Amino acid sequence: MSLIKYFWEDLQPGAVRDLGEITVSAEEMKDFAEQFDPQPFHTDEGAGRRSIFGSLCASGWHTCALAMKLTVENFLNESASMGSPGVENLRWLKPVYPGDTLRLQQTIVESRPLRTRTDTGLVRSVWDMFNQNGEKVLHMEGYGMFRRRHPASPEEAALLMADKAKE
Amino acid sequence: MSLIKYFWEDLQPGAVRDLGEITVSAEEMKDFAEQFDPQPFHTDEGAGRRSIFGSLCASGWHTCALAMKLTVENFLNESASMGSPGVENLRWLKPVYPGDTLRLQQTIVESRPLRTRTDTGLVRSVWDMFNQNGEKVLHMEGYGMFRRRHPASPEEAALLMADKAKE
Repeated sequence: MSLIKYFWEDLQPGAVRDLGEITVSAEEMKDFAEQFDPQPFHTDEGAGRRSIFGSLCASGWHTCALAMKLTVENFLNESASMGSPGVENLRWLKPVYPGDTLRLQQTIVESRPLRTRTDTGLVRSVWDMFNQNGEKVLHMEGYGMFRRRHPASPEEAALLMADKAKE
Repeated sequence: MSLIKYFWEDLQPGAVRDLGEITVSAEEMKDFAEQFDPQPFHTDEGAGRRSIFGSLCASGWHTCALAMKLTVENFLNESASMGSPGVENLRWLKPVYPGDTLRLQQTIVESRPLRTRTDTGLVRSVWDMFNQNGEKVLHMEGYGMFRRRHPASPEEAALLMADKAKE
């Protein structure tokens, strides 16, 4: 296990992180699609050319999986991540074609302590993925849970629970 | 290519569709995670046991990909699907563990003609995936585009464009 660099306190709203890039081949697209999304325009070049996409293109779930790979390898595996409850506003904005090089950017937009666990904080992030032409191909938003470097004091915990009771 | 059974007109709000079930093994979980989500609790049984999940568990993106597989094999490949712009309210509600059997249900909640293309309609669906204990493990919502059996008449198209202009 690698050393933890990022606890909840290290993830502040406004921070923009470059999560690297990845190039995806036709073979990888077809391999993913045959397992998980066997629509003809994801598994066959000819069907792709005849489709509204004009070419073989990646399953949207493959694009999400590639974004996750970059997020884990370039951020989460050095963080005190405790998982994610879900994602909002997932948008497949442009098709991803064979040979495209995808670059991922994460922006932290919100941070707050978790009310029910003094050792954990929540961070809301936006992910945007761009192809080599600068076109945005993927957008998504979501919360992640991260362990705190310093758990809430009993006083802070009491205030958080009082806030929760007011909701 | 299989025969198309479902055009836009065949997908009416309130319809509930059983999209079948799939059992997922530890080997499949680790194989997906090594490619796309190499967090220790997704790739290693021991790390899974020591994690907050208490066991090796599937990447949330693997669960989404399995839901897509069931959707394609038991619905989309017999439909006039033209793709999806995105997903809302994606929630990973419970961990998915090795050997779990996941059953997928789709409910159509909204349908309307696309204003800008007379040959296409939009359908909003909710997907819920349950494990063998009846616990909901995944929820998501999203639009799909489907070709119409009967394109809008010039009169209907004019009304739709007038509606759009009012927005």
